[in-house]
Amino acid sequence: MTPIITAFARSPDRGRGMARDMRVRWAFEETGQPYDLRLVPFETRMDVADRAANPFCKIPTYEEDGLTLFESGAIVLHIAQQHLGLLPPDAHARARAVAWMFAALNTIEPPILDRQYAVFFEAKEPWFAQRLARVDERIRKRLDELSLHLGERDWLDGGFSAGDLMMVMVLRWLATSPMLDAYPKLSAYVARGEARPAFQRAFAAQLATFTASSAG
Amino acid sequence: MTPIITAFARSPDRGRGMARDMRVRWAFEETGQPYDLRLVPFETRMDVADRAANPFCKIPTYEEDGLTLFESGAIVLHIAQQHLGLLPPDAHARARAVAWMFAALNTIEPPILDRQYAVFFEAKEPWFAQRLARVDERIRKRLDELSLHLGERDWLDGGFSAGDLMMVMVLRWLATSPMLDAYPKLSAYVARGEARPAFQRAFAAQLATFTASSAG
Repeated sequence: MTPIITAFARSPDRGRGMARDMRVRWAFEETGQPYDLRLVPFETRMDVADRAANPFCKIPTYEEDGLTLFESGAIVLHIAQQHLGLLPPDAHARARAVAWMFAALNTIEPPILDRQYAVFFEAKEPWFAQRLARVDERIRKRLDELSLHLGERDWLDGGFSAGDLMMVMVLRWLATSPMLDAYPKLSAYVARGEARPAFQRAFAAQLATFTASSAG
Repeated sequence: MTPIITAFARSPDRGRGMARDMRVRWAFEETGQPYDLRLVPFETRMDVADRAANPFCKIPTYEEDGLTLFESGAIVLHIAQQHLGLLPPDAHARARAVAWMFAALNTIEPPILDRQYAVFFEAKEPWFAQRLARVDERIRKRLDELSLHLGERDWLDGGFSAGDLMMVMVLRWLATSPMLDAYPKLSAYVARGEARPAFQRAFAAQLATFTASSAG
């Protein structure tokens, strides 16, 4: 059976590939695997019936014969472990690539997500500027460190891996702020990720989903 | 070679097992593996020399012959993949246990960590109460969902796994708030985790580290 993933019918990013299904779509494309979609309305996130697939009612979920998964990190790792293209063959290099996945999701993403919460929900508060400055300071600390690590490398550790896929996707969430402009190495890194043919295919697919849903 | 992990010489939690080395210590104990410690001062987090081990200068790091890892999630997963005790043998159940690790770190931990930031750095702001209420609302949404999923189960998915280890550790960060009291199923779940002999050994070991460092 072709795996099925859930995605928003009309993502609030209006087709800019910011929703978490894009991570999984990209992983499918890098490994040359087909997938099917099950679209869910953004308004209700997921139907209560979908709690069986994800107790936290978030997209994406992943279904194949006898297995249902949630969490984009877990789904990307599962795809990467099943198919060639996202994890190096050497066991140590593989463990390091997985460490970069966790770094993207557990060290870099939290302050960036916090920034999104502030912008979405606190922009009208009199203390917004003060709070945003503090969040941005936390983000910059991590970007400083990440940029220092990247140095002249193309990718985080050797060749492109699932760790890079996740890191590029997380950094793309800063596209709505000028923050990344101060980090030319990181901007170039994100651009390298976006230039990959697999990214391009995944991006076109999610945009097509948005366009088709919006036309309906 | 016995793996070496880094931990704080004097954790600011004063031996309550809240620092992230506790996750790794517990994983070693569940799998019956020995480990050595390299203590680093909390004040400077890690020496700049340790950027080689972790670009983000956080504990814990993990070193064995030819392999250096960072991110507690990646280290626990590595230990779980090398040794019996933290992942079920069935491939599908294994993938689901890993999904719960990601859920703990990427869905449950971020709002809880955000609460810690608010309490540590914003408690004196006139808008603290307003901000805390909003963070707590986000946490409660996740605890509602987690509690609903847990229901009458002892563990998240079948037997105890690395997913439970990570979830219990993340929920323990709420120990400084009365929040968990409203969730008897989750409180009992955390208590079940803490009652495991492996947890007890790991807890005693980190407390011994703190006590020895404090006496010096």
